[in-house]
Amino acid sequence: MDLDHVAIAVPDVEEAAASYCRVLGAPPPEFETVESEGVRIAMIRLGNCRIELLEPHGEGGPISKFLEKRGPGIHHVAMRVDDADAEASRIEGCGARLLGGVRGGSGGSRVAFIHPKSLHGVLAEICSKPS
Amino acid sequence: MDLDHVAIAVPDVEEAAASYCRVLGAPPPEFETVESEGVRIAMIRLGNCRIELLEPHGEGGPISKFLEKRGPGIHHVAMRVDDADAEASRIEGCGARLLGGVRGGSGGSRVAFIHPKSLHGVLAEICSKPS
Repeated sequence: MDLDHVAIAVPDVEEAAASYCRVLGAPPPEFETVESEGVRIAMIRLGNCRIELLEPHGEGGPISKFLEKRGPGIHHVAMRVDDADAEASRIEGCGARLLGGVRGGSGGSRVAFIHPKSLHGVLAEICSKPS
Repeated sequence: MDLDHVAIAVPDVEEAAASYCRVLGAPPPEFETVESEGVRIAMIRLGNCRIELLEPHGEGGPISKFLEKRGPGIHHVAMRVDDADAEASRIEGCGARLLGGVRGGSGGSRVAFIHPKSLHGVLAEICSKPS
């Protein structure tokens, strides 16, 4: 299991991406709007993983709520696995709780979220790319 | 710049390490008490980086305060660089703020922290191993 990305909620993804790339010396990010998740994303490449900046897109999504409640900061960490469906079953078999089951993500990926109660306050995504 | 570890504040590092290793399918961690930093650590190996669980050791340290204020959760992310001193100078030259300058870490490493105000609410460590 590899760490794929650290996701950070911010109010303005363009402005945050400019600071992150400057401070971390990273190349320009890729931007994407994912309507179904209600987010605008900047993906910043580090050597061995990525930083995903998340801005709310539209009203009332989870990133809006996070920002209202806690302000900008780390929203979740994402782990890359070979098979998110199999891994989700294994995780549930350990007695951990998922948030809403495995679902389709961007580009044909499969994603699931482990409930923060099962990881001491940390929201963790598991994701696998299409084979 | 690679992500070296994600550090998570927890009240009980043994208990948290047991859940993390079970849920993430990771091998048993290494435990260490760092008196100078007032922490007990469990270091869990993932494929490309590590998860560092931090329990307060002694009274009134930064992890105690974090837990009192926010409860368990992600405390900081750490980036591995070749030369933390040079990188810290570059980062300050970008107009970002450090927390307390570069200092010696465990095993002869050099570490510095970037102020959360310079990274949209995220506390980031940079660290380099002795050459």
